[in-house]
Amino acid sequence: MNSGDKKITWARQYMPVLSSIRERFEREQPFAGMTIGMALHVEAKTAVLVETLAAGGAEVHITGCNPLSTQDDVAAALNERPNIHCYAKRACSVEEYYAAIDRVLDAKPAVTIDDGMDLIHRIHTGRRELLESIVGGCEETTTGIHRLRAMANEGKLEFPVIAVNDTPMKRFFDNVHGTGESSLTAIMTTTNVLIAGKHLVVAGYGYCGRGLAEKASGLGARVIVTEVDPRRALQAHMDGFAVMTMDEAAALGDIFVTTTGNAGIITHRHFPTMKSGAILSNAGHFNVELEVDWLEEHADAVERRDGIDSYTIGGKTIHVLAEGRLVNLAVPKGMGHPIEVMDLSFAVQALSAEYIAKIGSTLPGGVYDVPNEMDERIASLKLAALGITIDTLTEEQVTYMTSWDIGT
Amino acid sequence: MNSGDKKITWARQYMPVLSSIRERFEREQPFAGMTIGMALHVEAKTAVLVETLAAGGAEVHITGCNPLSTQDDVAAALNERPNIHCYAKRACSVEEYYAAIDRVLDAKPAVTIDDGMDLIHRIHTGRRELLESIVGGCEETTTGIHRLRAMANEGKLEFPVIAVNDTPMKRFFDNVHGTGESSLTAIMTTTNVLIAGKHLVVAGYGYCGRGLAEKASGLGARVIVTEVDPRRALQAHMDGFAVMTMDEAAALGDIFVTTTGNAGIITHRHFPTMKSGAILSNAGHFNVELEVDWLEEHADAVERRDGIDSYTIGGKTIHVLAEGRLVNLAVPKGMGHPIEVMDLSFAVQALSAEYIAKIGSTLPGGVYDVPNEMDERIASLKLAALGITIDTLTEEQVTYMTSWDIGT
Amino acid sequence: MNSGDKKITWARQYMPVLSSIRERFEREQPFAGMTIGMALHVEAKTAVLVETLAAGGAEVHITGCNPLSTQDDVAAALNERPNIHCYAKRACSVEEYYAAIDRVLDAKPAVTIDDGMDLIHRIHTGRRELLESIVGGCEETTTGIHRLRAMANEGKLEFPVIAVNDTPMKRFFDNVHGTGESSLTAIMTTTNVLIAGKHLVVAGYGYCGRGLAEKASGLGARVIVTEVDPRRALQAHMDGFAVMTMDEAAALGDIFVTTTGNAGIITHRHFPTMKSGAILSNAGHFNVELEVDWLEEHADAVERRDGIDSYTIGGKTIHVLAEGRLVNLAVPKGMGHPIEVMDLSFAVQALSAEYIAKIGSTLPGGVYDVPNEMDERIASLKLAALGITIDTLTEEQVTYMTSWDIGT
Amino acid sequence: MNSGDKKITWARQYMPVLSSIRERFEREQPFAGMTIGMALHVEAKTAVLVETLAAGGAEVHITGCNPLSTQDDVAAALNERPNIHCYAKRACSVEEYYAAIDRVLDAKPAVTIDDGMDLIHRIHTGRRELLESIVGGCEETTTGIHRLRAMANEGKLEFPVIAVNDTPMKRFFDNVHGTGESSLTAIMTTTNVLIAGKHLVVAGYGYCGRGLAEKASGLGARVIVTEVDPRRALQAHMDGFAVMTMDEAAALGDIFVTTTGNAGIITHRHFPTMKSGAILSNAGHFNVELEVDWLEEHADAVERRDGIDSYTIGGKTIHVLAEGRLVNLAVPKGMGHPIEVMDLSFAVQALSAEYIAKIGSTLPGGVYDVPNEMDERIASLKLAALGITIDTLTEEQVTYMTSWDIGT
Repeated sequence: MNSGDKKITWARQYMPVLSSIRERFEREQPFAGMTIGMALHVEAKTAVLVETLAAGGAEVHITGCNPLSTQDDVAAALNERPNIHCYAKRACSVEEYYAAIDRVLDAKPAVTIDDGMDLIHRIHTGRRELLESIVGGCEETTTGIHRLRAMANEGKLEFPVIAVNDTPMKRFFDNVHGTGESSLTAIMTTTNVLIAGKHLVVAGYGYCGRGLAEKASGLGARVIVTEVDPRRALQAHMDGFAVMTMDEAAALGDIFVTTTGNAGIITHRHFPTMKSGAILSNAGHFNVELEVDWLEEHADAVERRDGIDSYTIGGKTIHVLAEGRLVNLAVPKGMGHPIEVMDLSFAVQALSAEYIAKIGSTLPGGVYDVPNEMDERIASLKLAALGITIDTLTEEQVTYMTSWDIGT
Repeated sequence: MNSGDKKITWARQYMPVLSSIRERFEREQPFAGMTIGMALHVEAKTAVLVETLAAGGAEVHITGCNPLSTQDDVAAALNERPNIHCYAKRACSVEEYYAAIDRVLDAKPAVTIDDGMDLIHRIHTGRRELLESIVGGCEETTTGIHRLRAMANEGKLEFPVIAVNDTPMKRFFDNVHGTGESSLTAIMTTTNVLIAGKHLVVAGYGYCGRGLAEKASGLGARVIVTEVDPRRALQAHMDGFAVMTMDEAAALGDIFVTTTGNAGIITHRHFPTMKSGAILSNAGHFNVELEVDWLEEHADAVERRDGIDSYTIGGKTIHVLAEGRLVNLAVPKGMGHPIEVMDLSFAVQALSAEYIAKIGSTLPGGVYDVPNEMDERIASLKLAALGITIDTLTEEQVTYMTSWDIGT
Repeated sequence: MNSGDKKITWARQYMPVLSSIRERFEREQPFAGMTIGMALHVEAKTAVLVETLAAGGAEVHITGCNPLSTQDDVAAALNERPNIHCYAKRACSVEEYYAAIDRVLDAKPAVTIDDGMDLIHRIHTGRRELLESIVGGCEETTTGIHRLRAMANEGKLEFPVIAVNDTPMKRFFDNVHGTGESSLTAIMTTTNVLIAGKHLVVAGYGYCGRGLAEKASGLGARVIVTEVDPRRALQAHMDGFAVMTMDEAAALGDIFVTTTGNAGIITHRHFPTMKSGAILSNAGHFNVELEVDWLEEHADAVERRDGIDSYTIGGKTIHVLAEGRLVNLAVPKGMGHPIEVMDLSFAVQALSAEYIAKIGSTLPGGVYDVPNEMDERIASLKLAALGITIDTLTEEQVTYMTSWDIGT
Repeated sequence: MNSGDKKITWARQYMPVLSSIRERFEREQPFAGMTIGMALHVEAKTAVLVETLAAGGAEVHITGCNPLSTQDDVAAALNERPNIHCYAKRACSVEEYYAAIDRVLDAKPAVTIDDGMDLIHRIHTGRRELLESIVGGCEETTTGIHRLRAMANEGKLEFPVIAVNDTPMKRFFDNVHGTGESSLTAIMTTTNVLIAGKHLVVAGYGYCGRGLAEKASGLGARVIVTEVDPRRALQAHMDGFAVMTMDEAAALGDIFVTTTGNAGIITHRHFPTMKSGAILSNAGHFNVELEVDWLEEHADAVERRDGIDSYTIGGKTIHVLAEGRLVNLAVPKGMGHPIEVMDLSFAVQALSAEYIAKIGSTLPGGVYDVPNEMDERIASLKLAALGITIDTLTEEQVTYMTSWDIGT
C-alpha cells in the first residue's frame, strides 16, 4: 500500500457511519451523473467522504480549504481513484490556492461542499456564470455559515446552502469533542509543555470553547475564559472557570487558544503584558483571531521552529503556533479532527449532499438547516455501530407527553 | 428574629440579582394596584421573590405547588408582611391543597405565577369566570410548559403565559447546576451512602440529567444514562457515560434518579431485576416517573424512615426516596434548589411578571418565550454582582461578524 | 422497629465487609470474656461495629468522642442489646462528657478503641491504675495518632496502640472519599448555597484536603488550596488548583474548609479581609482550626441558626458552621462519614481490635502500624462484596519482578 | 541556530528549576575534575540536564537508554559543546546500542546516571573492572530501581545508587502528570482517534496508571483498570473507574495502555477476544508488557505505518504502537515527558548526582532514597519560579503539632 492509501485505510476503519451510508449509496446511486465540487481539508478522513460520494455515483472534484492542511500523499491516492480529481497541494501559494478552486469550479459542479465558503464565495464574486447550473451547496463551518447568513440577509445568496455546522450532532461532537481534543493534542505535541497547572486562556465559550475548557481542565489546567456574551460568561463561571477580559487574562495566561470565529481577539494591546514564553494558538476557522501581522512587523527578532514562530519583543518571547491558523490542522504534527468525529460530521455532509442533490433545484437561495430527522438518523447509525440500544417511548408515555390534563 | 425570618434573611444575602431588581421595583412600582396569584414551593427563597413583587406594589396571594415542600415558618413570616397572604401548609391533604389554590384565585389575580401550572389548570377547568380579568401568567417548570404548549396547540390556552423555564439562564443554571447539586445533596443527606464508586443511573440526558451526571461523576460515581433520543444518548456516550436501556440499567444501578418529565420510567418491569438495597429517586417535576403505587400494592413489607420507604419484595429491598416526589424538595432534609440558582430563576420570574403585567393584555392566549434581552440582562446583573467584567465587541469585530466578503 | 434500630438496620445493609467479619467472629469468638472500651461518634454505623465486636464475645462499654455527634436513639437501641453499654448523650455538658468516659473506664477494658485518644489520654493522665490490665488500644484519627506518636517519642505511651488511621485503606477511602463527600454534603445541606462557581478554600492538601478539593471541583467550584508543605503545595498546583497563603485566600474565598489537623488556621488576622457572607467550616478533628473564640468575643452581633453562627463584625457577616467542630458530624443535618467508608474503616478497627486482643500483651508501649496483610485482606473482602475479580500475578511475573538480569 | 540548538533552547525556557541549579553549579563547581556517565533518552530536555552537569565542572559522556528515543540533531548539538560527548544514534542496532554503552564506560565515570539501569547492569556483568573507580550512581525509573533492590537484596549491588524515582516529586509529577499527558498525546497524535467515549483500559493503578486514568477520563474516556493489588483495585473503583481482570477487559477495550512495569500483561490469551481495531500501547519502561513477539510470529498479515504495526489475525486487526516500547517516547511524533516535568525530575537527578559525588565513596553498595530535604528544596524552587508563596507554620502551630496533652 502507498502511504496515502495506508492513511485512508486507517481512517476508514474508525468511520462506521460513513461505511453504512456508503453501502446504501452503492445500491441507490443518488449522485448518478452528477458532479460534486469540494473545498475541504484534504487528508485521510476527507478522502473517506470523497470515496463515499463517488460510490454514490458522483464525479468528484476537490481542492483544499487551507494552504497548510493538505496531505500530499492522500491527495495522490485520491487522484488514483476513478471519478475523483484532486487539485490540492500542501504549502501552495495564494495564487495556486485560488487557481485550484477555479479548477474545481471548471468542472461545473451541481453541488458544492465547502469548509469556509471558498467555493460559494468565488462563485458569487467571480464565477457567476456557474450559478445557473448549481443545485445547491453544503457548508461545514460556523464561520462560513455566519457569513452565508449575512449574504442571505442581504439577498445575495443565490442558491440553497445546507448549514451542516448548525446541527446538534456537529455542535456536540465536532465542536466540543473534535476541536477540544485535537487542538489540545496539537498544542501538546508541538510544544511539549505540560498542561497540568498551566493557566490556559480560552477565548470564546461557544461549543468549541467549552469543549476545550473542559478537556484542558480534565488534564489539570486552570482555565480562564473570555467572552462577550454575558450568559455564556456566566455559564463559564458556573462551570468552574475564571472569567475575565482579555486585557486581564493576557497577563496571567501561559497558553492561549482563540475559538471565537471573530477577528482581533489577541492583539498588540495584549502582547506587552504577556509573560515571556506565552504560547498563542487559534482554534477558530480563519487566521484573524491573533494579530500575527503586527508581531511580524514589530518583533525585534523571530526564531522559526516546526509549527512555532517565536517573537522576541521588549525582552520577552511570545510563541505563535501555526502562524495563527487552525492549530489542530496547521501544525506539522496536526492530524485535524479525530476520525470518529469526522465520521459523524461527514455523514451529515454525505446525507446533506444527497438531500440538496435531490431537492435543491426546488429551493430558493438561502441558508437551510439540516433536517432534524437526518441528524437524528446519523446518531442512530452511530449508536448501532457502537452496539448501544436505547429506550423508546411507550404508547402511554407518548400520550402523557402530549396531554395536559393530568394533575399533580 | 423568628425562624421564618431567619431563613428569609439567610436566603436574601445570596440573592444579589433579586436585590438589585427590588431596588428598581421600589422606585418604579410596576405592579401598583395589581394582584399577583402564586403557586410555588413556599420556602425562604420564594419568600424573597414574593417580597420583591410586593415591593413593586403588588398585592400577593400565594400557596404551595407541592404538598411536601412548604416550610411553615416561612409561610408564617410571609403572612406577617403587609400586602402578602400565604395559604400554604406542609403535609396538607389533597382537599386542603386545592382549597388553598382556590383561595389564591378568590383574590382575582391579574397575573399568575405557577410552578407546575396548578393555577392555570384550575382557572381553565373550574374557575373560568376569572379568565376575563387575567392579564397573563408565568410558568416555572419544563413539565408545566410542555403541558401549556399542548393546551395552546389545541387552542385551549386562553391567556398569554411566559415560559420562564425556556431560557438559556434557566437551563444552564437552574436545571444543570440547581437540580444537579440539590438532588445529589438530598440523596446523600437522606441515605448517608457514598457516591464514589456507585453505579448511578440517570434517566434522561436533558439539562437536568446532564448536570446530575457530571456532578455525580465529579464525586466519583460511575454514571449510567438512559435516553429515548438518539442524539442525547450519543452525547452522553461521548461525555464518558455508559448508555443503555433501563431494562439493562436496572440490574446494575445502585442509585437511580429520574429527570425525564415523563411517566413510567422505572416500573414493575424493572423492580425484579434490581439489586437489593437499590435507591430510587425522582428529580423530575411530577411523581409519575417511578411506579411507587405498584410497590405500595405489591410489596411484602414496607418500612418507613424519614424520607425513605423501603419495600421488601421477593427477598430484596428497594428504597424509594420522598415517595417518588421531587427529591431535592420533598425529603425532610431537602432544601430545594441552591439559593443563587433561585436568585437567577426568580429574577426571570420577577422581570417576566413585570413584562406580562405591562403588555399581557395586548397578547392573544399562548405560550411566549422570555424576551432574549431580558434573560441577558439578568446575566449581566449577576456578573456585576460577582464583580466580573467581560469583553465587548469592538466596532471592527461587529463589522467582521456582519460582513461576508473577507476572504481566507 | 424503634428509630434507633431503623437507623442501624439501614446502615448495616451497606456494610458488607463488617458483615462478613461478624460471621467469622460469631464462629471464632476472638473476644470471649474480654471487655472493650470505646469512645467513638455514637451513631448508626458505629453501632454496627459495636454489634460486630459483641458478636465476637466482647462486653462493650461505649461513649461518644464529640459532644455533638451522638444520636440518642441509636444510643438507646444499643443499650437494649445484650453485652453492650452505652453512656453517650447528645449535647451533654463537658462534665457529663468526661464522666461518661470515666464510666467506660470503670468497666476496666482490656482493649480501648478511640477516635481522638480521649480514653488513652484519660488513662495516662488520671486513671493510671488501669494501665496494668490494658492489653492495648486502637486509635482512629490522624490527629490522635499524631499525638500518640509525640507521647511515644517522649516515652510516655505505656501500652501498644494500633494506628488505625495510618493505612492505605483509611487514607484512600475514609479521608479522601469519606471526608470529601460528607463535608460537602454537610455544607450544602446546612447552607443551601450553590457550590458551582464558588471560590472554595481548602486549608491543607493531605488526603482529606485533596478529596475535598477534587470533589468540590467536580461540582463546579473554583478551589484554592493553602499549604505549609512545598511538595503538597506543588501537587495541588499541578492538580489544577490555585495555591496561595491564607492571607491571600481570605479575601477571595466564599467557602472555607480546614483539614490540617493543626490549630489557628483561620484567625482574627483573616476575618477583616473576608467577604461578607463568607462561610467557614472545619473538617479536621478538633475545633481549633478556626478561631471561633475570637469571633464570639469581638463580634458586634451574633445570629444563631441551626448549625450556623453568623457574626457581624465591621459591617460584614461571617458564618461559622457547627461552631468550628467537625462539619460533617456536628451540623444538625450531618450524617458523618458515608456508610460504606465506615464499613472499611470499622473493618480495620474490628480486625485491629482482634489483633491487639490476641498479641497486645506481648508488645511494649508504642504506636503500631496496622499489619499490611490485614489492610489488604479488607480490600479483598470489599472487592468480593462488590463482585469484582482482579488479576493475580502469574509465576512468570513474580519471577520477572524479583529478577534483575533481564535486559532491555 | 541549528535544529538541535533550537530544540534545546525551546526546552530550556520551561526548565526554571534546572536554571537556578545551573547558576549555583557554575559558582560552586561540585563536579570539578569528575567524569559522569549517562544513559538517558537523548533529547532536548536531557540536554539541559547535561548542560547543567557540565556547567558544574563535569566531563559528561552520554548515550541513549532506548533505541528509538534518540533525537540525532540534539545529539549533534550536544557533541558541539565543550566537555560533552554523546554516542547515541536513533534506530541503532542492538550491537551499536551496547557498543555506545561501553564507550560511555570507557570514559571511566565516577558517577553513573541511568534510566533503566543499563550502565549499572553492564558494569556489574561485563565491566567489573570499573567498580573500583565508581563513586555511585543515580537511577531514574521505577523498573530500574525495582531491579536494583532485587540486586541489593542478593548482595550483588556493589556501589551506592540513588533511587531518583522514589521521591514524592517524581511520583506526583513525572509519573502522574508526565506519563499521563505524554502517553495520551502520543496515542492521540499517532492514531488520530477520539478519546471521548472510548473504553480505555489502563493496566496497573500505580502513580502512572492513576494519572493516565484521570486524564483520559478528563477527556471523556470510559476507563477500565486492571490490577493485581486489591487496595489499588479498590482505589480505582472508588475513583469511579471500572475494575476487572484483563481477561474481561480485553473484550471491551478500544485502547489499552500498560503501566505495570511487569511482563506479560496483554498476551496471546487476550488477543483473540479483542475487538477489531483495538489499539495497544505501553507506558511502562520495558517492551515486555505486550506480547508483541507472539503477534509477529502468528499474525496472518502485518501492515506497518509510522509508529503503528497492524496485525491481522483471525479476520481481526490489532494495532500495536511503537512496537510495544514506551509509547510517549518511541512513536515518531513522541516528545517524551513534558518539559516542566523533566525540569523537576532532572533537578532531582542533578542534586542527586551532586550528593552522590560528594558522599558516595563513604557509602556501602545499596539503593538509597533521595534525601527528603533535597526533594522538598526542589519543590520550593519550583514554587518560587511559579511566583507562588505558601504558608509557614507559626511557632504556636509547631508547638501544637508536637504536643499531646491538649484536650478536646
